[in-house]
Amino acid sequence: MKVYLDNNATTPLHPEVKKEMAAAMEMFGNPSSMHAWGREARANVEDARHKVARFIGADDQEVVFVGSGSEANNTVLSLFVCASSQCIPGTSMRNAIITTKIEHPCVLETSECLMHRGVNVEYLDVDQYGRIDLDQLKGMLGDHVGLVSVMMANNEIGTLQDIRAITEMVHESGAFMHTDAVQAVGKIPVDVRDLGVDFLTMSAHKIYGPKGVGALFVKKGIPYCPLIRGGHQEKGRRAGTENTLGILGMARAVEMRALEMHEEEARLLVMKEVLRKGIEERIDDIYFNGHPTESLAGTLNVSFPGAEGESILLYLDLEGIAVSTGSACASGSLDPSHVLLATGSDAERAHGSIRISMGRDTTMEEVEYLLDVLPGIISRIRNMSTAYIKGGAHAASR
Amino acid sequence: MKVYLDNNATTPLHPEVKKEMAAAMEMFGNPSSMHAWGREARANVEDARHKVARFIGADDQEVVFVGSGSEANNTVLSLFVCASSQCIPGTSMRNAIITTKIEHPCVLETSECLMHRGVNVEYLDVDQYGRIDLDQLKGMLGDHVGLVSVMMANNEIGTLQDIRAITEMVHESGAFMHTDAVQAVGKIPVDVRDLGVDFLTMSAHKIYGPKGVGALFVKKGIPYCPLIRGGHQEKGRRAGTENTLGILGMARAVEMRALEMHEEEARLLVMKEVLRKGIEERIDDIYFNGHPTESLAGTLNVSFPGAEGESILLYLDLEGIAVSTGSACASGSLDPSHVLLATGSDAERAHGSIRISMGRDTTMEEVEYLLDVLPGIISRIRNMSTAYIKGGAHAASR
Ligand SMILES: Cc1ncc(COP(=O)(O)O)c(C=O)c1O
Ligand SMILES: Cc1ncc(COP(=O)(O)O)c(C=O)c1O
Repeated sequence: MKVYLDNNATTPLHPEVKKEMAAAMEMFGNPSSMHAWGREARANVEDARHKVARFIGADDQEVVFVGSGSEANNTVLSLFVCASSQCIPGTSMRNAIITTKIEHPCVLETSECLMHRGVNVEYLDVDQYGRIDLDQLKGMLGDHVGLVSVMMANNEIGTLQDIRAITEMVHESGAFMHTDAVQAVGKIPVDVRDLGVDFLTMSAHKIYGPKGVGALFVKKGIPYCPLIRGGHQEKGRRAGTENTLGILGMARAVEMRALEMHEEEARLLVMKEVLRKGIEERIDDIYFNGHPTESLAGTLNVSFPGAEGESILLYLDLEGIAVSTGSACASGSLDPSHVLLATGSDAERAHGSIRISMGRDTTMEEVEYLLDVLPGIISRIRNMSTAYIKGGAHAASR
Repeated sequence: MKVYLDNNATTPLHPEVKKEMAAAMEMFGNPSSMHAWGREARANVEDARHKVARFIGADDQEVVFVGSGSEANNTVLSLFVCASSQCIPGTSMRNAIITTKIEHPCVLETSECLMHRGVNVEYLDVDQYGRIDLDQLKGMLGDHVGLVSVMMANNEIGTLQDIRAITEMVHESGAFMHTDAVQAVGKIPVDVRDLGVDFLTMSAHKIYGPKGVGALFVKKGIPYCPLIRGGHQEKGRRAGTENTLGILGMARAVEMRALEMHEEEARLLVMKEVLRKGIEERIDDIYFNGHPTESLAGTLNVSFPGAEGESILLYLDLEGIAVSTGSACASGSLDPSHVLLATGSDAERAHGSIRISMGRDTTMEEVEYLLDVLPGIISRIRNMSTAYIKGGAHAASR
């Protein structure tokens, strides 16, 4: 049995997206060209923009297509450097950014780079469930802060933030608000007007669209500066010939989300409960990470102290099951998850965690298969590692 | 009859690329994931990298996949800003860039932005054929110059530069050499070792691959700094989940180029000669732009003073023929082509120019159809515009 439970890393193309993209392969004009081929491509891209905009409650011209969620996030943060070097007049006095300790690496590493360029970056803590503290935010805001970036749904633990309340507070202080909604859009309702945000990041491949395409919502009238320059594409906001296939695929993915996400959420919640209970009943000494209710329906992150996440992943892989340890982007590194550490998890718990992320193709049968297989794997690994740990520091601390 | 003669703007997908991409739609793993799905995607992306690298004579690890030729160019230039702000130690004293007046807007506009960030940018002139002058370059090089960026083949007029000789001179001065080879790779032989360049830009959609994917060659050991940060993808050189479909499509496109480009070049040269002679015989008062021999085989740029390029384009469009005025990226703007102005063309000649760019699907029949239709269109427009111009400044100047 092949069981894919890593939908937060990426998702298969929706059958409708495949159809759309296969058909779109015949359309090859450059949307910038004035002739019939170009006009056809342009019309299709604008139609896609309309679909994406409508899905998040934005106006068409507020949607900029980009090459990934990472690019969208980099654009928003770098915008700020540009501001500080006078590309955007009037914002250069607000020379600080606030973000959280649990953002995706594309926000965290970009922030770090900005520090070398004279931008002050401050980090919000999170509680044991991964939620930020509005009082801490209030204390950090001030005349010097130009931008606050808080992710809507965490990719590792699924925890949701109250973006509307955060935005309200941020706007009171005169700063701009960005949310990385890559894991939220298409899973929970997202309406940019309701949230009030100035910038919002989306990525197609987390919601059954193609990899290599994303969108950035930029509220009308908000200062903006392209990360990739030198073409009038996207109204001068992102140069480069448009990924027409990808854009059409993303729009179709979003249309299908509008039809499917609500029913799916209910189904995922049921399966997550089965999974949670099943793990609890079958395996000792476990911890669930993330918020018990304010969380993505399909995401369950669980720690098995005494068992390395990587080992669990590999044993599950041998059984045909795909899960992940933390974010796929951090895999390859053996550092414990920065997200779990930020929630107060100790290194052992952080090392012993896996993320199970279900999606539209996940079935109850698959969940049960995981529940059949997992207990044996955990005890096998724990037995091996106990032998190893026995004389070590870990054993003493447990 | 539908005749697409705008292959420098973009090209249709090669049938083999379509097949490859349709098959690849079933493979959906994230190349960063450690499980079977991820490993399959990773292996395919690395195989694609190998194909692209081999095609330009590079080592696999010297190829970075990006989202467009524009992104690749922006990355190389911005690298330089980064250098000047100490991300890359040791290069910060060389605070100037040399480029040409005929680069693609994604180089020209990025350079302009860099000037606001304290980088000095100097521009090489070109002769009437669009070639730079090595003596002028020699005079401009010096200890202060960190990077020289000269395009290999111009998108509007097809003129080729002698990148090997330029690179040699640039390296003697201790600067790094970048070439935007978007219009060259896959049309003429390109070997990075033979050229000696440090950075080289490619884009898939100009050579029958998908839009929204490109590659940057970065020579081993050369300072580098990502434009998009925050993921270990592409060995930390370009964050963002890989556009797997696009990358596989690009690799297949490149494989097909290796098989087809040589024969095709000969065929295109014959058709260009027919086109050139045919236009010369049928239409008065014309100018061919670009170098007569050191030029892309499929590109013919011609000026018809007294006839606006936009009008010609629209009339041809009504007859089912697609050509372009200058670059697609500049279309929408009514400024005369910066490339033609740089070659010494006056504004009227520049305004009256069209670019005919042939490709692998172009047939002699199509060329003859264009030759049938074009003379009538030019005389019709000239008659109208003469009526309009008669009392104006243009009439006096002709
Ligand atoms: C010479 C040249 N450089 C760069 C580009 C930009 O490449 P892309 O369309 O992939 O952004 C183009 C094409 O538009 C080009 O012709
Ligand atoms: C929360 C979050 N932000 C950003 C990204 C990056 O998006 P992309 O994979 O399109 O670069 C991801 C996924 O990797 C993510 O989970």
